[in-house]
Amino acid sequence: MSLDRLQDRLGHRFRDAGLLNEALTHRSFGQPNNERFEFLGDSILNCVMSIALFGRFGQLREGELSRVRASLVRQDALYRIALDLDLGDSLRLGEGELKSGGARRPSILADAMEAVFAAVFLDAGFDAAKAVIDRLYAQALGDVDPKRPSKDPKTALQEWLQARKVALPTYSMVQALGEAHAQEFEVACEVPKFGIRTLGRGPSRRVAEQQSAELALAALRNK
Amino acid sequence: MSLDRLQDRLGHRFRDAGLLNEALTHRSFGQPNNERFEFLGDSILNCVMSIALFGRFGQLREGELSRVRASLVRQDALYRIALDLDLGDSLRLGEGELKSGGARRPSILADAMEAVFAAVFLDAGFDAAKAVIDRLYAQALGDVDPKRPSKDPKTALQEWLQARKVALPTYSMVQALGEAHAQEFEVACEVPKFGIRTLGRGPSRRVAEQQSAELALAALRNK
Repeated sequence: MSLDRLQDRLGHRFRDAGLLNEALTHRSFGQPNNERFEFLGDSILNCVMSIALFGRFGQLREGELSRVRASLVRQDALYRIALDLDLGDSLRLGEGELKSGGARRPSILADAMEAVFAAVFLDAGFDAAKAVIDRLYAQALGDVDPKRPSKDPKTALQEWLQARKVALPTYSMVQALGEAHAQEFEVACEVPKFGIRTLGRGPSRRVAEQQSAELALAALRNK
Repeated sequence: MSLDRLQDRLGHRFRDAGLLNEALTHRSFGQPNNERFEFLGDSILNCVMSIALFGRFGQLREGELSRVRASLVRQDALYRIALDLDLGDSLRLGEGELKSGGARRPSILADAMEAVFAAVFLDAGFDAAKAVIDRLYAQALGDVDPKRPSKDPKTALQEWLQARKVALPTYSMVQALGEAHAQEFEVACEVPKFGIRTLGRGPSRRVAEQQSAELALAALRNK
């Protein structure tokens, strides 16, 4: 994709195109690359989200605001935005990374997305970066409903895997512990594609499954 | 202290003095208070520090930048800045909190400091908040030397207590474990004034003391 089209989609035209180039350069391509922009971009994104959430839900408690913000800035959310932008088409990757599908890898796309935010900031200041982020996050912010409980972990895990066209997880009972009136169940959640197997426990099979799914999701997000 | 003098020291004159008032109002005083500003102020401070560190030490790795940033935004650092500003004199506290010395409490002062940063942002935008923070943090930022290893925990603990005119901690050997060629030592660090007693372990008394001091410092900072 031409950088012109990307800049149109970002809603920002770079004075210094070198900054955008650096933001789109993965370390596998060489130096300079976007690693040093990530720290800055992550912090700017966090701040812009805080401003947006404060404006919309300023009466909520800090813990609730932090929880919503975390859901908006995590890799998964950045990855979706990068997909919407077709950011992968503009990445500069080393040959090996390119062949192994690096341009579609969530962590690479999410990192580049943060780096792009830093590049806009360095090019034109905070308000310009804020405008770009507000625009790209308009839908995600519009969908925020802090009163709605967050999705249950099994549903969230299923959606996460479906978004990546990966086979759904399998749940299997490992053991039931304790006596009949006070049993505890241990359930395994497996996602073979990612080599993940987590164990959840609870007073019912359902609760144990949810816990195993939560651990699997956490493991996937940290990959 | 008059709010005029505080504004002089901040280097920002509020268009909407109500924002500054709210930032200086502790929850013990009533509603509205500065709790809802903290989330925003914390995030703005983090972002401004990231920008400052990126500008100065942009070639460092993300982990190092994060470590330095954490040292600049933690309660202890905010507390020092609040002391320099005599912020305690301008706080609005409930009667009980006032009598028990709330205006000198590090957590109350640090929270109010963050709230003031949010108030400047709400009053005049990001660049105004950044200017105030850059100014107040000029010395702390000037002192940053990312190559210097962080202070050893015993020294840091001692300085932390001295800054609060509290008696120094005592270290005592609790036990030595294992055989002579592979002994492990357990040492207790006590700060009676704050009811803190932590246990550290290590292959030497010195290492065990450092660990116990680190735990004590963490406990004090979370108080």
